[in-house]
Amino acid sequence: MRVAVIHGPNLNMLGEREPEIYGSQTLTDINAEIMRAASELRLEVRCAQFNSEGDIIGALHSARVEADAVVLNPGAYAHYSYAIADAISAIGLPVIEVHLSNTQAREVFRRTSVVAPACTGSISGLGSQSYLLALRALAAL
Amino acid sequence: MRVAVIHGPNLNMLGEREPEIYGSQTLTDINAEIMRAASELRLEVRCAQFNSEGDIIGALHSARVEADAVVLNPGAYAHYSYAIADAISAIGLPVIEVHLSNTQAREVFRRTSVVAPACTGSISGLGSQSYLLALRALAAL
Amino acid sequence: MRVAVIHGPNLNMLGEREPEIYGSQTLTDINAEIMRAASELRLEVRCAQFNSEGDIIGALHSARVEADAVVLNPGAYAHYSYAIADAISAIGLPVIEVHLSNTQAREVFRRTSVVAPACTGSISGLGSQSYLLALRALAAL
Amino acid sequence: MRVAVIHGPNLNMLGEREPEIYGSQTLTDINAEIMRAASELRLEVRCAQFNSEGDIIGALHSARVEADAVVLNPGAYAHYSYAIADAISAIGLPVIEVHLSNTQAREVFRRTSVVAPACTGSISGLGSQSYLLALRALAAL
Amino acid sequence: MRVAVIHGPNLNMLGEREPEIYGSQTLTDINAEIMRAASELRLEVRCAQFNSEGDIIGALHSARVEADAVVLNPGAYAHYSYAIADAISAIGLPVIEVHLSNTQAREVFRRTSVVAPACTGSISGLGSQSYLLALRALAAL
Amino acid sequence: MRVAVIHGPNLNMLGEREPEIYGSQTLTDINAEIMRAASELRLEVRCAQFNSEGDIIGALHSARVEADAVVLNPGAYAHYSYAIADAISAIGLPVIEVHLSNTQAREVFRRTSVVAPACTGSISGLGSQSYLLALRALAAL
Amino acid sequence: MRVAVIHGPNLNMLGEREPEIYGSQTLTDINAEIMRAASELRLEVRCAQFNSEGDIIGALHSARVEADAVVLNPGAYAHYSYAIADAISAIGLPVIEVHLSNTQAREVFRRTSVVAPACTGSISGLGSQSYLLALRALAAL
Amino acid sequence: MRVAVIHGPNLNMLGEREPEIYGSQTLTDINAEIMRAASELRLEVRCAQFNSEGDIIGALHSARVEADAVVLNPGAYAHYSYAIADAISAIGLPVIEVHLSNTQAREVFRRTSVVAPACTGSISGLGSQSYLLALRALAAL
Amino acid sequence: MRVAVIHGPNLNMLGEREPEIYGSQTLTDINAEIMRAASELRLEVRCAQFNSEGDIIGALHSARVEADAVVLNPGAYAHYSYAIADAISAIGLPVIEVHLSNTQAREVFRRTSVVAPACTGSISGLGSQSYLLALRALAAL
Amino acid sequence: MRVAVIHGPNLNMLGEREPEIYGSQTLTDINAEIMRAASELRLEVRCAQFNSEGDIIGALHSARVEADAVVLNPGAYAHYSYAIADAISAIGLPVIEVHLSNTQAREVFRRTSVVAPACTGSISGLGSQSYLLALRALAAL
Amino acid sequence: MRVAVIHGPNLNMLGEREPEIYGSQTLTDINAEIMRAASELRLEVRCAQFNSEGDIIGALHSARVEADAVVLNPGAYAHYSYAIADAISAIGLPVIEVHLSNTQAREVFRRTSVVAPACTGSISGLGSQSYLLALRALAAL
Amino acid sequence: MRVAVIHGPNLNMLGEREPEIYGSQTLTDINAEIMRAASELRLEVRCAQFNSEGDIIGALHSARVEADAVVLNPGAYAHYSYAIADAISAIGLPVIEVHLSNTQAREVFRRTSVVAPACTGSISGLGSQSYLLALRALAAL
Repeated sequence: MRVAVIHGPNLNMLGEREPEIYGSQTLTDINAEIMRAASELRLEVRCAQFNSEGDIIGALHSARVEADAVVLNPGAYAHYSYAIADAISAIGLPVIEVHLSNTQAREVFRRTSVVAPACTGSISGLGSQSYLLALRALAAL
Repeated sequence: MRVAVIHGPNLNMLGEREPEIYGSQTLTDINAEIMRAASELRLEVRCAQFNSEGDIIGALHSARVEADAVVLNPGAYAHYSYAIADAISAIGLPVIEVHLSNTQAREVFRRTSVVAPACTGSISGLGSQSYLLALRALAAL
Repeated sequence: MRVAVIHGPNLNMLGEREPEIYGSQTLTDINAEIMRAASELRLEVRCAQFNSEGDIIGALHSARVEADAVVLNPGAYAHYSYAIADAISAIGLPVIEVHLSNTQAREVFRRTSVVAPACTGSISGLGSQSYLLALRALAAL
Repeated sequence: MRVAVIHGPNLNMLGEREPEIYGSQTLTDINAEIMRAASELRLEVRCAQFNSEGDIIGALHSARVEADAVVLNPGAYAHYSYAIADAISAIGLPVIEVHLSNTQAREVFRRTSVVAPACTGSISGLGSQSYLLALRALAAL
Repeated sequence: MRVAVIHGPNLNMLGEREPEIYGSQTLTDINAEIMRAASELRLEVRCAQFNSEGDIIGALHSARVEADAVVLNPGAYAHYSYAIADAISAIGLPVIEVHLSNTQAREVFRRTSVVAPACTGSISGLGSQSYLLALRALAAL
Repeated sequence: MRVAVIHGPNLNMLGEREPEIYGSQTLTDINAEIMRAASELRLEVRCAQFNSEGDIIGALHSARVEADAVVLNPGAYAHYSYAIADAISAIGLPVIEVHLSNTQAREVFRRTSVVAPACTGSISGLGSQSYLLALRALAAL
Repeated sequence: MRVAVIHGPNLNMLGEREPEIYGSQTLTDINAEIMRAASELRLEVRCAQFNSEGDIIGALHSARVEADAVVLNPGAYAHYSYAIADAISAIGLPVIEVHLSNTQAREVFRRTSVVAPACTGSISGLGSQSYLLALRALAAL
Repeated sequence: MRVAVIHGPNLNMLGEREPEIYGSQTLTDINAEIMRAASELRLEVRCAQFNSEGDIIGALHSARVEADAVVLNPGAYAHYSYAIADAISAIGLPVIEVHLSNTQAREVFRRTSVVAPACTGSISGLGSQSYLLALRALAAL
Repeated sequence: MRVAVIHGPNLNMLGEREPEIYGSQTLTDINAEIMRAASELRLEVRCAQFNSEGDIIGALHSARVEADAVVLNPGAYAHYSYAIADAISAIGLPVIEVHLSNTQAREVFRRTSVVAPACTGSISGLGSQSYLLALRALAAL
Repeated sequence: MRVAVIHGPNLNMLGEREPEIYGSQTLTDINAEIMRAASELRLEVRCAQFNSEGDIIGALHSARVEADAVVLNPGAYAHYSYAIADAISAIGLPVIEVHLSNTQAREVFRRTSVVAPACTGSISGLGSQSYLLALRALAAL
Repeated sequence: MRVAVIHGPNLNMLGEREPEIYGSQTLTDINAEIMRAASELRLEVRCAQFNSEGDIIGALHSARVEADAVVLNPGAYAHYSYAIADAISAIGLPVIEVHLSNTQAREVFRRTSVVAPACTGSISGLGSQSYLLALRALAAL
Repeated sequence: MRVAVIHGPNLNMLGEREPEIYGSQTLTDINAEIMRAASELRLEVRCAQFNSEGDIIGALHSARVEADAVVLNPGAYAHYSYAIADAISAIGLPVIEVHLSNTQAREVFRRTSVVAPACTGSISGLGSQSYLLALRALAAL
């Protein structure tokens, strides 16, 4: 099973700032954890990070032919990008939304994910475990 | 009369998925229909598709010098991109908003177009006819 | 193909007042344009205007047996007449909603059409062209 | 006891369309059922159907002298006709609101009845039984 | 100066019910008061009452040629009839909205008049005086 | 046909307080009326009253095996208990919601029933008749 | 009959600025008109203007012993001063709210008067006539 | 590590009804899966199901002394039980909220979890995997 | 005078967690303070704590015959339990709502008490003094 | 301990009007009760009443040096005066908000106190007892 | 150029409380900074502070004849004083709104300034620099 | 001190269209003014303009290492780009939001800046001065 892991905006800044919210791991650390879990679960995983909404839409479109499932951390786009939601519906793959922090326990605008209704499921608040559990869920499908 | 036809996000996926909503035509099919109508109406038409909000804004800016009118399918950006609305106001050309599906008959968030107030008019729900009628309306101006 | 063109409230006042919004054509002018287009498109068209919500509902019911499709300018009823919306659903014909002005660019209450979800599609902001394009869309069905 | 049964807009279309929502009975069938129940309950019943809000108001006013109670299916007017609500308050008779379908289980706009606060009670979702039970309730007053 | 006085829905029931809200005068009494004031103010006044929204729109259209100003008690239509508001805008005459009761002191829905923005001014809460003062205001224009 | 009649919170206080809203009958009186009607309609009826949301959910679950239909007066839980609504959906029986008073004519929070969308129909405002008519409706199914 | 006319905030600036909204009369001009009308109507009138909410409350309290009725132009306080509304309720005199401009046809925040529910009636949009008609209404009580 | 798994209202009905939403597994099946995973992860797990809000609060209080962490499926209480949210805050243990279905893709009321802000994280839409991943996340803490 | 003191959900956890919000006293400490004040004020007081909404309703019903007044800390039920509000209305006793913390200074959902409109008065933010002052208020009635 | 008791707008009218809401005591009566309680509690109390928002802010500022605590009845300013709320925050003294009537049981706008979040606690609905209990709470601090 | 600097409510408390929000400068310090900057920019500046809304309105009216421009820190009145907004519109001078703190980053109610639409521009979040930059902007006009 | 000046979408169109809102300067003119002020203030400034949200996020990330502060005109992204707000929070530099026009005096959607809460302060409505004052504020930090 091929899985595209797509990291959204600002996740390249992980580990440098606001560790009280996002933890002290860098994105490189998380990607390494993801690759170890992928190996254990016998998944073929590719990770990429994008700040642009259009690039995330493009990556989802590419996943349609290059992957069998997607793990997507849409970052703040979760709260307003109907275009990403449409892209998820368009590709017809299982997509699991993940967030490092518990978005429900933060500002009011983070309580709504317009992306979630187009996804299979979502996992949030568990740090890098959010990604690893998403891979495991896909492996169990 | 030169017309820029701008297709927004996810329209490159047309015909592959969700035909119950968007029909079975591909974007290539629609562009061919558009070119035939352009020829019949003696319009000079160029078509382009973009997933990125910034690219659509750029295409609108370019239209200011390269075209006399615009047909824009903003896709899901219709519902939140005030930046595209500002770009339409900034270029001062007639712009007709088109949608393949009847956006008013779908999810609640699709009922509001923040782009529409900056446009000359809008046509929705008529499949590829939405584009062809928009060209005809521009030709009749 | 038989088409019923139904003009809603206040459209009999067209051309007399508020030309900055609705143009200087009278309803008679528009009906003449409609009949010319009908002739060109080989459609059998009948036009009628009503100020009363109940009369519009009645005209829609009659269209069920006397027409194959409807072009409806619901005027201000677009924004609150759920009874007209129900009538459209009840007759099972293709109905295209038209507006002379770009309703999205005017007062806030004009941004919502409760009638639109029951229609096939909608065309607005293009003056009398809104009607002509609707006929053309029906002819192309 | 004299009872005016007033059927609101689009109910004359019953049985022809959307049987999944409104059932396959025609209004004639329902009126026949009503008359049978009236006979059994020894009520003097008159049925009428109107598409126009003004006509329904007029029928309510007439009921003030010609009837002792009213069964009213306001159709979609239930959701916005404050004028019908005022008419019900004005006549001072017991009025029972009925709906064939369970309006609470359909679109959001159908969840609110502005007419209900002026009525004695309401019955919905039970098909033609809604009318028959309303008659029975009036007979039991 | 010719003035059309238009009474809206349910005002024909005045004096019969709910005197704690609307007073004990009948519409005939009020019309007599209006005619006396008209005579004193040297105004040519015609009074009419309509329950139907469409008929009120028609009466406003007629006023355009038959009157120089309008006194309108829109009754409950004040709270939702955008079609009547459009008719007022369309005729271009001074129109004063009147209400017998203080609509701001009653149910929440009565706090908003969608008709008021299209009128010259409004007078409410003063019983039949509301009409008489409106005539006086028109005479003073 | 076996019918479970479930009375919700505070209904055990009936007849003791607030007779201007709920009438002077006690719950015992109403249950007696219900049993007489059941006998007449040849229904096998069991009545029970619960103040706890969890107990009502349990009673609905039990009805799945012990009854063929349910008459439910959810009391104030109607306005916020999504858990009771889920229980109704889960058991797959016809359930009719009843209220003694006309909930639409009281406080604003009583205008919405979150339980209603899961029910077959609803009857309100008719005192103990609300229950008797619900039984009759079930008998007529 | 003694009438206190209370002008609210910014009315001392009348005639100097924004004549397109408020007319070209100064407050002195309006007070002169008021005194002429008072003389004609045999009313004993005193006029005063205050910018402070507390002073208006004080003037209303004083009116309780020094006047029999009040004409109040609350200016912008109309839209948020519940304290002035309470003062009106507290003094138990007839109070008529007046506005020079048609507040319903201006910004959205001007559509709501929190003061109105405590008043006997209101008159707006008729320039200085608003005051004169209010005096006349009080004289007719 | 000791983990309390708390199943909320209606989950005892799993597998019997609405399999298109909740799958065909029974609660017994899920508990068996949970116990197998617990064994594999060397967790000491106890499962319990409650329909009553008060019982869930009690179970959370008990967990404070009898467990080191909680997996909670609050069912429909997720959407309104501030009392359960307070209980989670009160016990100071890591609590992971789980849902079998993707609550964000269903009715609007299911989009908000008032319980989530008090939890460590949440997992939804992944069927019984939601529980198993929650256990794994706790084991990894 | 007999007073029932009813403590709502989670109050049994007092003193163990979140002392920055609720203080360090246990419920036992507070009950002891209450009994001392009762003795001083010559009130006959009984205290009880319940996590279940249904049990609180039951305790209120019992108070009707066993007490002359109630002091109720509804905890989080204050914000949504219309069933408890109905129970308070049903028993017809003076009921004072108390809260240990200043609920207005915390999360938005705590700003509304649906229970308060049914109570005689409310006291909040004063720690255990909230209870003692409520007893004193009842003694002074 | 020195306590400033600040009475807000319209409280000087107490006992003269609306006794069904505010009781029949005058402000002088209440101040006498307050002074007796102050004497009993060995508090040094000064009472003052202001109709102007600015004067209440000034009195709060003065309290910073002249008092150790404040009892404030903000009257209707409670519902919109963010400036008074800021003044309370600025002076850093314990402030208890009091209301004679149960503000939660009256008009909707009285349900929100923008002042409350800045106060230590609040007491309402207990007539003049509200003040006396507030003094007692301050004495117990 | 003459500039009136108007400080709103509670600004006289600056430097004494809440330095984490408003800084440690006193209003005297800020006025000294303002006078130094005025001298450098060759502006004639007068500073004044008012707690009362009416006094701020009066100061704005005076500025019309005594000043050429205004720097206004409306404090909390920014969020609800439409009367101050009207005063700004009435005087027709350039007015710059300033705030010491970043009002957008604090409580939700501070996000809206009803005063801002009547001003030329606004500067916030920059401490005493907010005033100095406003002076500089006026000097550059 | 190094400052990154980031111009958002459509600002490259400045001076060409809508001069009544944005003035007649081009972006080149403004950049020249900025460089002159930078020179005077001894700041090292780099200006850049981007239409794409992702590019603005990237430029903010780059500023973290290449600059000490940022002046950001987010254009229409101010009103919905939570991703840009997150980027500002992530880089931990002082960021001042600027707007050429007074955004509070235009359409309703422009009244809210979701970016502002993450910024140090904001300056709007002062044309190119908005930028120059922002630089001066940074120089004064």
